[in-house]
Amino acid sequence: MSAAASLSIALVHYPVLDKNRDVVASAVTNLDIHDIARSARTYGVARYYIVTPVLEQQRLVEKIRLHWLEGWGASYNPKRKAALELLQTESSVDAAVSDIETRTGRKPKLVVTGAADRANSVSFAALKELLAQEPDQPFLVLLGTGWGLTEEIFNRSDYVLEPISGGSDYNHLSVRSAAAIMLDRLFGR
Amino acid sequence: MSAAASLSIALVHYPVLDKNRDVVASAVTNLDIHDIARSARTYGVARYYIVTPVLEQQRLVEKIRLHWLEGWGASYNPKRKAALELLQTESSVDAAVSDIETRTGRKPKLVVTGAADRANSVSFAALKELLAQEPDQPFLVLLGTGWGLTEEIFNRSDYVLEPISGGSDYNHLSVRSAAAIMLDRLFGR
Repeated sequence: MSAAASLSIALVHYPVLDKNRDVVASAVTNLDIHDIARSARTYGVARYYIVTPVLEQQRLVEKIRLHWLEGWGASYNPKRKAALELLQTESSVDAAVSDIETRTGRKPKLVVTGAADRANSVSFAALKELLAQEPDQPFLVLLGTGWGLTEEIFNRSDYVLEPISGGSDYNHLSVRSAAAIMLDRLFGR
Repeated sequence: MSAAASLSIALVHYPVLDKNRDVVASAVTNLDIHDIARSARTYGVARYYIVTPVLEQQRLVEKIRLHWLEGWGASYNPKRKAALELLQTESSVDAAVSDIETRTGRKPKLVVTGAADRANSVSFAALKELLAQEPDQPFLVLLGTGWGLTEEIFNRSDYVLEPISGGSDYNHLSVRSAAAIMLDRLFGR
């Protein structure tokens, strides 16, 4: 099993912060689904979860998934189908964790992204080594939407991955770009 | 001057191929503008050109740019303003080349992305070295939309950058993700 096959990613829409640091459920966007699924498939990731407790949003994701997997989209663009086969909706981070436990028989280690200087911070190199050292240990990387993941999510995570630095004082990548760069740093040649 | 400051990127909407390999002008999408501008700013790129000959599309880009630079968006999200300051619309690849010549006094070397096994193919490491060796030489990276850049564009380019490999047989990243990974490989720590 490649290192990427033990890693899943979850795009978390609840609980996240808004601009005023209130806890909210953010809206699912179509391009987050497609872009991150395509990156996940390119790097051989196990599963891509969309986490939202909002039923209407879950239905929207399911509708998009089925369009590309079984509907007109499947024959129009088989490559998109291959990417969206990784997609799965879950109502909470706990539900995604349970799904991985069911699939693998092991509780995944939780990794959050985008903050430095925490007690359990790891560099990309360190996380890469952890993945190589424990090939049977599943990992779940939580990606925040809105203005980021809540303190509660940070506190329950096993590792906090260092932020992506571009060498400038500006670091405001989209979650789609950050996910792509993260996967490339972990699994790209 | 950092290596990134001699490099500009252009998102080319014409001439590009469609699914049937006909030459078309593709549509500008809002998220391409934002995501790639944010990545460009994070890595310190000189300029981000949107290339389209379609006047209505040029006006759309300008409207978005002005909203974030001078309109309500500028105070709502100053970080977005900083990213979109790099944005510039040009009607053709030649016009973008001329703009760089005017700004720097030198004709940029053209780099296209996403094809291997061409006579002038370069690896990421080789392009990184070229940028370091010639700090005063401007470079312009052309990113294709639709089903990719035309043969004519490939033929007039100085370098063809190797495709991004994720170690799987699947390689269908979005242009937004590919741009982010390319900049990280060239300029990320």
